[in-house]
Amino acid sequence: MRYARIRLDGRPVHAQIDGEVAHVLDGSPIDGEPRRAGVAVPLQEVDFLPPVMPGVFYAVGLNYRRHIEHYGGVVPDRPEVGYRANNALTGHNLPVVRLAGVQGRFEAEGELVAVIGRTLRHATRTEAQESIFGWTIGNDVSAREWQHSDRTFWRSKNSDTFKPMGPWIETGVDPLAQTTTVRIDGVVKAEFATGDMVFDPFDYIAEITKYITMHPGDVLWMGADSTVQLEPGSTVDIEITGIGTLSNPVVDEKGTPHVE
Amino acid sequence: MRYARIRLDGRPVHAQIDGEVAHVLDGSPIDGEPRRAGVAVPLQEVDFLPPVMPGVFYAVGLNYRRHIEHYGGVVPDRPEVGYRANNALTGHNLPVVRLAGVQGRFEAEGELVAVIGRTLRHATRTEAQESIFGWTIGNDVSAREWQHSDRTFWRSKNSDTFKPMGPWIETGVDPLAQTTTVRIDGVVKAEFATGDMVFDPFDYIAEITKYITMHPGDVLWMGADSTVQLEPGSTVDIEITGIGTLSNPVVDEKGTPHVE
Repeated sequence: MRYARIRLDGRPVHAQIDGEVAHVLDGSPIDGEPRRAGVAVPLQEVDFLPPVMPGVFYAVGLNYRRHIEHYGGVVPDRPEVGYRANNALTGHNLPVVRLAGVQGRFEAEGELVAVIGRTLRHATRTEAQESIFGWTIGNDVSAREWQHSDRTFWRSKNSDTFKPMGPWIETGVDPLAQTTTVRIDGVVKAEFATGDMVFDPFDYIAEITKYITMHPGDVLWMGADSTVQLEPGSTVDIEITGIGTLSNPVVDEKGTPHVE
Repeated sequence: MRYARIRLDGRPVHAQIDGEVAHVLDGSPIDGEPRRAGVAVPLQEVDFLPPVMPGVFYAVGLNYRRHIEHYGGVVPDRPEVGYRANNALTGHNLPVVRLAGVQGRFEAEGELVAVIGRTLRHATRTEAQESIFGWTIGNDVSAREWQHSDRTFWRSKNSDTFKPMGPWIETGVDPLAQTTTVRIDGVVKAEFATGDMVFDPFDYIAEITKYITMHPGDVLWMGADSTVQLEPGSTVDIEITGIGTLSNPVVDEKGTPHVE
């Protein structure tokens, strides 16, 4: 099943995607078992929002060997996690805005995202597997000069629109058997086995919940193998087979695409 | 005015504190102008929750010169912010749990917390001042060995119960003219001028909103001058004059206070 959050008459609602139609639901599928509200929207007319606004937004930094080696890092010997901020989230088809102050490399990373469906603490690997509501796609956009110049990742990774997520949550997929592909204007720029991780989502959830209670709606972004440069005027697509394609145009802060 | 979030019949509700009585409200004071719902609870019987569950939980690390020098740090030349996680929040009178794996220093820091009341981006200092809904108190608990051994602050600062906040939000106070006092079992362990900051809350909000939209209910923890060691079996109070006192017992993970 595919579940989205969409804008309908100016307000956010949940929807179930069935083929080319979004059926509006009377509540969140993560919190209960909502029913169809009797309103359907053709998929092509849907205004997508991030499929969930998490209580806690977890992000794995270094989780694919090639990415770690690219940055000269050390492969972690245990799963450790960081955080991102909800203001940065945006939906499928909405613009990623390159802020006026961004200089140097401005990069996308295509990431698998686990959406938690249960409250859990001290979870076993099996309990971690059972705790997953579903899977979506994240684009972890970074402004690298800020990442290097700042004490934290606040503006390099958490500026508005730097965290597209969507288009929907897929509940019926084995995400570790898939392929992640990043395209710019339709041209493949990166492709890797989604499951080729140092630690998988269930390793992370088991480790996090030794100390931390995870809650329904929390999200865990799983890191990326490759980075891809973004330029205003282009469109970046992240596809994970079995889930879908998250597509976002890149624009300059003034709001109009840059034309070369 | 003082606004709390409290547990009533097992569910969270908002309340206005008037003297020794909590008047239950029919909605959040941050989102609108709720009315009294006709239910009042004596203050002594109130089960306090964190006064707000933020969309984004901002935290300033280094903002008092003495604290920076204590850690051999460099006084920041610009306001930069980090993040904490909602799972770690707990309310007034609820226990701070020293997890079984915590070794070495386990420390409290008494912090002023700004609660945002408006959506704002590219805020001037004046707009930042006008954006404040009110002020509360935070206890920024840290497990220092994890802080030093881990790549991020995930479990050192974000384990469950490590971020008490409350008891309520005070809307009518000049927080920068107050005094912060940290007591263990009633004995003063730290005392400092709340407003003696490197950058004040309005500096931070103006800087953050150059890149980031802040939303109603977001919180900004302002850092501390001093750290105070916590031991299971004791109670830690953070008082900020004009706001109130946030009090939390410290217990071992097994749930029973340690008796020496």
